[in-house]
Amino acid sequence: MHAKEMAEDFPVVDAESDAWDAVTRMAERRLPGLVVTDTAGKPVSVLPSSQVVRILVPSYVQDDPSLAGVLSERMCDRVADKLRGKTVRALVPDDAPEPATVNADDTIVEVAAVMARLRSPLAAVMDGDELVGVITASRLLQLALTPR
Amino acid sequence: MHAKEMAEDFPVVDAESDAWDAVTRMAERRLPGLVVTDTAGKPVSVLPSSQVVRILVPSYVQDDPSLAGVLSERMCDRVADKLRGKTVRALVPDDAPEPATVNADDTIVEVAAVMARLRSPLAAVMDGDELVGVITASRLLQLALTPR
Repeated sequence: MHAKEMAEDFPVVDAESDAWDAVTRMAERRLPGLVVTDTAGKPVSVLPSSQVVRILVPSYVQDDPSLAGVLSERMCDRVADKLRGKTVRALVPDDAPEPATVNADDTIVEVAAVMARLRSPLAAVMDGDELVGVITASRLLQLALTPR
Repeated sequence: MHAKEMAEDFPVVDAESDAWDAVTRMAERRLPGLVVTDTAGKPVSVLPSSQVVRILVPSYVQDDPSLAGVLSERMCDRVADKLRGKTVRALVPDDAPEPATVNADDTIVEVAAVMARLRSPLAAVMDGDELVGVITASRLLQLALTPR
């Protein structure tokens, strides 16, 4: 089985679209992350949900976690407000790793190796320059554990 | 809002239970990972799905990804067989980071900071030595984005 056959229906989001809407949809649908594309549809980032939550952490707390304690509860409860009016691009950290992509003809082992190495629960399946689908870690495990 | 109120119903697995069953359930329920406990119920590891898929990658391919290409398709399709007869403990890598845990009275920002730092879509909520719940990144984002 090749990556192209493993791919499943998965929403991708344009880097210029609204960040609040994208994160709300991601959370409501319990998606493991966001596949962010440019306007031409090419993946610019594959963001695991564990990295999307970084937007909730003020940068001075990212630098010094002990500072989280000084934030009042009310401030913490309003921490998502900074998403308003931003685009999805704001969610992509400057030091984001390469997007987790695999080739359409990659095997289960090759896809698993990319996910493990980039610590990504998602892999975008590319046929040349074209995004042809997305594979989640859940989907990969289901396929690997289903006797054929 | 504190971590204890954010916690949701989430299955935990005993390190001595069957690995095949645990991974199958995780994949079927599309869970973002596994919270692995010892027999006393204390978390020993919080494994993101992106790390559970490592079990599908033979160790010589983890060391040298270019070797993935030499595996035949048939070998790849049977790669999950090595899970059979193993316990969940076999899924926990030797170099696994500390389990992603938060304190019952931690805020949204403190939970988000732990998830981001440990790249974990899950955090186990501890009240002293007792596991009192689990928070997923999806749940955290839903709570943060819901106007109160």
